[in-house]
Amino acid sequence: MNAQLPPNEQTPLDLVEARKRSVVDVDAVRQYLYGNKDQWEMHDEIVRIMSTDPVFAKDQWPNMKRTERYKNVLRMIHRVHELQDAHKWTTAQFRKAIGLLDETHPFTLHLIAFEPVFRAQASPELLREYGDLIANAGIIGCYLQTELAHGSNLTSLETTATYIPETKEFEIHSPTFTASKWWIGGAGKFATHGVVQAQLILRNGKNMGPHLFFVQLRSLEDHRVLPGIQLGDIGIKALGAWSTTDNGYARFDHVRIPAKHMLSKFAQVSDDGEYVQPPHAKISYGGMLYIRSSMITTAGWTAAKAATIAIRYAHVRRQGNKGKDGLEKQIITYPSVYIRLLPILSRAYTFLLLGRSLERAFSDMSTRLASGDTSLLAEMHATTSGLKTLVSTITVQDLETARRSLGGHGFSEAAGIGRIYATYLPNATFEGDNYILDFQVVRAAVKAFKAYTSNIKVSEVSQLSPFTMFLRHHDQSNKAGPQANLDSWHNPHTAVHLLELRALSAVRDYAMHEHGLDSHSDANVSMAQRVAKAVTEAFVAAQVEKFISGDVPSQLPGQEAHVVVDLLLLYLLTTLENALVELFSFNIFPSSTSLLLNGAQEDGDRARTLRIALQQQYAKLLPESIGLTDAFGFSDWELDSALGVYDGKVYEALWERAQREPLNQTEVPDGYEEYIKPVLLRGQRLASRGAKL
Amino acid sequence: MNAQLPPNEQTPLDLVEARKRSVVDVDAVRQYLYGNKDQWEMHDEIVRIMSTDPVFAKDQWPNMKRTERYKNVLRMIHRVHELQDAHKWTTAQFRKAIGLLDETHPFTLHLIAFEPVFRAQASPELLREYGDLIANAGIIGCYLQTELAHGSNLTSLETTATYIPETKEFEIHSPTFTASKWWIGGAGKFATHGVVQAQLILRNGKNMGPHLFFVQLRSLEDHRVLPGIQLGDIGIKALGAWSTTDNGYARFDHVRIPAKHMLSKFAQVSDDGEYVQPPHAKISYGGMLYIRSSMITTAGWTAAKAATIAIRYAHVRRQGNKGKDGLEKQIITYPSVYIRLLPILSRAYTFLLLGRSLERAFSDMSTRLASGDTSLLAEMHATTSGLKTLVSTITVQDLETARRSLGGHGFSEAAGIGRIYATYLPNATFEGDNYILDFQVVRAAVKAFKAYTSNIKVSEVSQLSPFTMFLRHHDQSNKAGPQANLDSWHNPHTAVHLLELRALSAVRDYAMHEHGLDSHSDANVSMAQRVAKAVTEAFVAAQVEKFISGDVPSQLPGQEAHVVVDLLLLYLLTTLENALVELFSFNIFPSSTSLLLNGAQEDGDRARTLRIALQQQYAKLLPESIGLTDAFGFSDWELDSALGVYDGKVYEALWERAQREPLNQTEVPDGYEEYIKPVLLRGQRLASRGAKL
Repeated sequence: MNAQLPPNEQTPLDLVEARKRSVVDVDAVRQYLYGNKDQWEMHDEIVRIMSTDPVFAKDQWPNMKRTERYKNVLRMIHRVHELQDAHKWTTAQFRKAIGLLDETHPFTLHLIAFEPVFRAQASPELLREYGDLIANAGIIGCYLQTELAHGSNLTSLETTATYIPETKEFEIHSPTFTASKWWIGGAGKFATHGVVQAQLILRNGKNMGPHLFFVQLRSLEDHRVLPGIQLGDIGIKALGAWSTTDNGYARFDHVRIPAKHMLSKFAQVSDDGEYVQPPHAKISYGGMLYIRSSMITTAGWTAAKAATIAIRYAHVRRQGNKGKDGLEKQIITYPSVYIRLLPILSRAYTFLLLGRSLERAFSDMSTRLASGDTSLLAEMHATTSGLKTLVSTITVQDLETARRSLGGHGFSEAAGIGRIYATYLPNATFEGDNYILDFQVVRAAVKAFKAYTSNIKVSEVSQLSPFTMFLRHHDQSNKAGPQANLDSWHNPHTAVHLLELRALSAVRDYAMHEHGLDSHSDANVSMAQRVAKAVTEAFVAAQVEKFISGDVPSQLPGQEAHVVVDLLLLYLLTTLENALVELFSFNIFPSSTSLLLNGAQEDGDRARTLRIALQQQYAKLLPESIGLTDAFGFSDWELDSALGVYDGKVYEALWERAQREPLNQTEVPDGYEEYIKPVLLRGQRLASRGAKL
Repeated sequence: MNAQLPPNEQTPLDLVEARKRSVVDVDAVRQYLYGNKDQWEMHDEIVRIMSTDPVFAKDQWPNMKRTERYKNVLRMIHRVHELQDAHKWTTAQFRKAIGLLDETHPFTLHLIAFEPVFRAQASPELLREYGDLIANAGIIGCYLQTELAHGSNLTSLETTATYIPETKEFEIHSPTFTASKWWIGGAGKFATHGVVQAQLILRNGKNMGPHLFFVQLRSLEDHRVLPGIQLGDIGIKALGAWSTTDNGYARFDHVRIPAKHMLSKFAQVSDDGEYVQPPHAKISYGGMLYIRSSMITTAGWTAAKAATIAIRYAHVRRQGNKGKDGLEKQIITYPSVYIRLLPILSRAYTFLLLGRSLERAFSDMSTRLASGDTSLLAEMHATTSGLKTLVSTITVQDLETARRSLGGHGFSEAAGIGRIYATYLPNATFEGDNYILDFQVVRAAVKAFKAYTSNIKVSEVSQLSPFTMFLRHHDQSNKAGPQANLDSWHNPHTAVHLLELRALSAVRDYAMHEHGLDSHSDANVSMAQRVAKAVTEAFVAAQVEKFISGDVPSQLPGQEAHVVVDLLLLYLLTTLENALVELFSFNIFPSSTSLLLNGAQEDGDRARTLRIALQQQYAKLLPESIGLTDAFGFSDWELDSALGVYDGKVYEALWERAQREPLNQTEVPDGYEEYIKPVLLRGQRLASRGAKL
């Protein structure tokens, strides 16, 4: 009966219909995702304030020059401080508001890099002097580590901090131009101070390795750069991203700072130039671990945005075959679309739950660290390295998959996902290139494997940590794995068990070839990536099994719990599907000849029952997909996407955004007289002479 | 002895060393890649002219507003026409110069979309009137197909062209706002004319489906938009890409055109309103097929740029462990780097050779088409659909892989690969979403499978086309596949044979489940992607085997031929490695227990000998990688990358580019007084009161 409606009148109806079909109580799931009702209401209230404040309007951002856009983000940072005063926001509320800005900005680096490092490592005296100033943004800091020619390998940094006992000072110096600090967020234009990673050189010339020093960069009077320091912005970034962050360079020419400005809580130089060693060299990783666990939550919310936009648009976009109602089918009904989008939705939920549980675990560990207990540090480091790689790699990929599912319009800036992708992308390379982090995972896993297997009789399964729990299968590895009939795939434990067996096989295979026994050790080294992935995915799968049996049913009403459990099972099954090559190559994948369906034969697809189970899972979740994305609670202001608007009026939104384009302000483009007209006249002249080209 | 050099003095030496090590004669390989010596010299001469002309200087592009940058590209188009006159360039030289612009621009659409369609389908009369004007750019066209609410499904387009017998006119009309043409390159600001896809409506209201109409859009006097037409730019695109192309919208309000402006070579409306049917409905695909074959060559050159940048940088960037010379190791020596980059190099070469051989095949077919022979059309359509998907999907991925291999600096715009990626990205969604094209491949392959197997006794292998040649294994499929010992992997035929068996298995499995025998047909439909990939990769592999045995050794000197053959074998082996999941799931992968190396055991990695063969291939090619990338012949002006500079002085190049950043023109940023200072003062005030946040 709707067959006569023009497309733009059909789209809102499609979302109304989809919302009716979903059984999920959006409020209940949303409160669960945000933690509780209060958390959601705080979020909602702040969004309401900001989304109606013209300072935070986003419509002109894409058309601004970088310098304008940078100034505009300074205005937004300023406005959040004003709002804090006006609404008497707590720190949590203030940080929520800062997190909602949706433009990258240099103040983030003050909050997540500079302040935590300073607070964790400054001496009590320095903390007394600067702690309140920093907490209130009376000074603004950045964290200066990476150099033009050196990245994550700290021991090769060129910047030096030489102790001068005569004056009790350090001299910060960049001996070459490649020693220039580079990529430093906030250093270019914004920050007044910074913490500098530099090689500590004692009087005798002895290099004690990289240490941290608190350095003032700009005058608090007029923001001018202090003598001996060169500061600047490193220029624009790939894909037009991060243009509102002044990633900067800093070069130091024998800059003196007071000796007490060395961050000396764990290592210091005495007045006479003696080095006093820290109790544990890696103590400073505590902060980084927390940052990494919050990266998982961030990935979850980022994937959630893309999933919301793409799933909404897939419900209103109609293309191809006509259905019984005479309308072209909604693209969400095509397998090529939903097999791309539903797994992304499942990963968004998984990462949100995982991030929350890890943040709890890590704040536990921080307490232990503070009291000097470093026993869990190495393994936590491996866990977070693996998770950082896994989650950022897959989320980058998911964002692009979601963007591509939008078809042609997905390449429009107005679609929104391109912008989310570009902003998220450096997660794959900063905080340590993913390929480098993999080795840390592999090293820890192989070490645990050797410890466990070399002494298997006394090793107790109970001594295994969550990260190495998969090793318990070692002594059972010759026994049959789980069954693989259609029913068994619906039991979450099947996937978990197989993913653990795969982790075990990968680690064992790696350990066996590690020492280049057959002179092909490079072939093995190149496998580090799959070992790290296998180990980390086994860890995540086991966590997901816990959510399914514990957290979800205990915190959500029955119907909603059921749907979310289905979604988490989809996570497990798609993870398994993506691991098939190793399940096969290690001979772990269950043979299921007796369970083949009609039509199959011996040389058919061995994974067919798994693929059918997946299909059943998709079919169950499709009608819930709009409810599950609404439960993320994004406002149109947060999504900033013409294709993801709540009311489904995507074509109006695209049209309206096109009208803002500066090129449309004149009917005839600038340059017509000088460049187009002469080309046309020349062509007409040539044609009239019968010239053929 | 170089241990004391600062990093920026070491980098040029590293490239000098690498160039010495390579045995490849760069000139010989370069001429082969460009076709011959003359082609290379023509290219080189035009690059010399353009790269020294200030109009084509690229250094200010990233800092321009979109309107400035658009005007600048108009200036470049104009300049190329001036240079054509000055240097008396042929059409081939003119097109080479246009192709070197390195900014997307609307004139491309005139050349590759508007003109070919017009030329192929206009009546002889219309061609006489406008052919020369179009060839000389006396009028400039665009191609208006996609609409706001409709993409590649032409039958659902809303725009109409109604025949008015009284005046012998067509009336072009957009009945709704969603009928607005959208995404039309050049329509926004540049083009004066266009070819419009519209539903042809006869007097009796009968809809004859989509046909093409030649419509003037703007006045040739003053470039103003003609009455009844609304034109505009659709706004900026994702990732900041394509900002210099005015992808536009166009809405028609009962616009009348003369009846003879219907492109009526193959279908027309007689004066009294009768429809005269075309001899073959798909005749118009001829042009598209050519465009698609040229897309493969374009992908090759695009991957070549990224490979050049990344491989050069990987030779000069040093990080991590120190080698015997006391220097940190070049990152190209790490497996995690070279296993990413060498396969990209191999695909660049493969696609360049493949594109060239297909362009020949397709110009053959065009000759046949012109004489009415459409026998090869359906299969060529399937072949190009498959190749378009395969090549664009993998190239997008390769560009990002190359970018990520650059580490942190890869996210800088100065690195260059981000820009290449963003520009290339829409290849994955335009000209038909890749997922939709897959179905066309699958349909053709399944049809061929059924035809061959239903009548296997009379079907001759000799009747199989290159695209379905893999079917010949059908009657041998129960026999053992190839051996899989270390030696056999070095025979290209092993990989080709296995890839053909995989294509066969995938098609057979699909055909068997196609009709939903087991009511899980969606699970099968979702497999279309892997079937299409398997079939297309088998085709490419067979072509590569031909290059290895024919084209390469016949056209290159012995040593160079040897190296290029090694590279093509790497292409085959990495393709095989990426196909492992299906080789295993279809039980095709050879079991090689007897050939296992020491250290392996039954539950070890079944693909281990393949992985070792790959490693051997990497080891052979590593010393040649600089020579093989130099052979692409890119000038620094073409690459426009600080990290890919020929002389290896990457740090100087990064530094120099940072100095161009507009934010660096003032020491204190605009916005300090209004926004930064008040925040700092507020914080200092709060801190002095002892406020804790």
